[in-house]
Amino acid sequence: MSAHGSDRPRVGTVKQITSHSNPIVKEIKGLVGQRKHRAQSGLFVGEGLKLATDALDAGWGVRYLAIGPEARENPHAQQAAARAKARGAMILEISTAVLANITRRDNPQMVVGVFEQKLLEPAAIRPADAQVWIALDHVRDPGNLGTIIRTADAVGASGVMLVGETTDPFAVETVRATMGSLFHVPLVKMSRDAFKAFARNWPGTVVGTHLKGSRDYREVAYKAPTLLLMGNEQAGLPDDMADTCTELVRIPQAGQADSLNLAVATAVMLFEIQRPNLKL
Amino acid sequence: MSAHGSDRPRVGTVKQITSHSNPIVKEIKGLVGQRKHRAQSGLFVGEGLKLATDALDAGWGVRYLAIGPEARENPHAQQAAARAKARGAMILEISTAVLANITRRDNPQMVVGVFEQKLLEPAAIRPADAQVWIALDHVRDPGNLGTIIRTADAVGASGVMLVGETTDPFAVETVRATMGSLFHVPLVKMSRDAFKAFARNWPGTVVGTHLKGSRDYREVAYKAPTLLLMGNEQAGLPDDMADTCTELVRIPQAGQADSLNLAVATAVMLFEIQRPNLKL
Repeated sequence: MSAHGSDRPRVGTVKQITSHSNPIVKEIKGLVGQRKHRAQSGLFVGEGLKLATDALDAGWGVRYLAIGPEARENPHAQQAAARAKARGAMILEISTAVLANITRRDNPQMVVGVFEQKLLEPAAIRPADAQVWIALDHVRDPGNLGTIIRTADAVGASGVMLVGETTDPFAVETVRATMGSLFHVPLVKMSRDAFKAFARNWPGTVVGTHLKGSRDYREVAYKAPTLLLMGNEQAGLPDDMADTCTELVRIPQAGQADSLNLAVATAVMLFEIQRPNLKL
Repeated sequence: MSAHGSDRPRVGTVKQITSHSNPIVKEIKGLVGQRKHRAQSGLFVGEGLKLATDALDAGWGVRYLAIGPEARENPHAQQAAARAKARGAMILEISTAVLANITRRDNPQMVVGVFEQKLLEPAAIRPADAQVWIALDHVRDPGNLGTIIRTADAVGASGVMLVGETTDPFAVETVRATMGSLFHVPLVKMSRDAFKAFARNWPGTVVGTHLKGSRDYREVAYKAPTLLLMGNEQAGLPDDMADTCTELVRIPQAGQADSLNLAVATAVMLFEIQRPNLKL
């Protein structure tokens, strides 16, 4: 745990907060509201007892755990607070009004955590140990990204590569949509150029969905480890990114919709790639 | 087109608006912000030229078409405005600031439409003509509902039943997530009791996803017309609703996620049910 400035209370302590203008409250609000603050501090905010428990179980660093009045009567929340405190987190006993203010919700969760961001280095990716990795090019929508991370977890994918300029995986909306899977699915950031070099050396199938794709996504024999590359919500895959793929496929459609939601298309691809590996 | 009150301008006209306090602007803001206003008026708001064109192509009623300064230079937007006007809509030439105010967006779409709601009566459902219908029990999240309507369109589903207390299909967030498929996919509202009676007489497979489901979703021979029943985001299917199903299935998972996003699970089911019917 890194050292704090002298104006901050020590970690591993309990502090009561009722004021909206408390400096820690302001700090947390900054993390909720601004990507810049998340990037500078390396911290992010996640809501709910389940999420905090997932973070603790997965060994992620917890800086603050803010617990509302109801949570202080809840044995599971008490246990989470005790675990977080033992790991050096500061426990904030906080009013419902301040919790609502922090998370900008009328009915806030009774537990809000401030966690330390964690990304995997590209060099730490081990394709040989993987069934499937996902690469998202310039993904824009926080809800889509969070949902894709949740689906990646559900199908046993080994991780998600965030390629180029993407939405922040540590935004509150993204974290919320992951439903805790953020703590189970390694994330890697890389530039498009780095990805291209990376994909060239990938030992299995590199598959992208593309309007130019001539093959039905169900006809491909996906060779593990499979790398699934998805374009973004507005533009799909640009040609230079599509060129990195060993297979370009399409998902057949029947109606008047001209495309699928990105998180839906990614899920349909993942369940197909993992079709032989998923069993009840 | 229904008659307007005497205090309102006539339809089929063009009106310039720059004031945030214009009564029509207030009316549209009420439709964006409050379900009550949408229910009372039978109207709803959708953003973007594509959406307006989809509505016109599909023959939906257009009450207002608000077009910003940029759109007035755009031949496609001009054409949409001419078509809407010919059908009795009032065309609102509106400032970017007022557009942003209406839709609560910093970068508003240059076209915003006010459309007449349309639901199908349950008695008008024709199972014999369908491959698949979707029923959503107490669906809560507008984005999920909109994404499911979009996916329903993409797989050629015949419609979506909204069972019990559901989020408003005509909320701006829902309409946005449908990407225009709202105008192609019939929607039906019914109570849980009405649904149960309906499902009992359904001629094909009635399938639900359920934790108690003992069968892999890929092992079922779905008999057309298939009725796919999905529980909501928090609670899944309650037992009395699950009892209406002729098949209860599970989607196998591999990781630590304990469930899929509702729109993702619905899509995975729909692509499986329609697997024999979808071709490139």
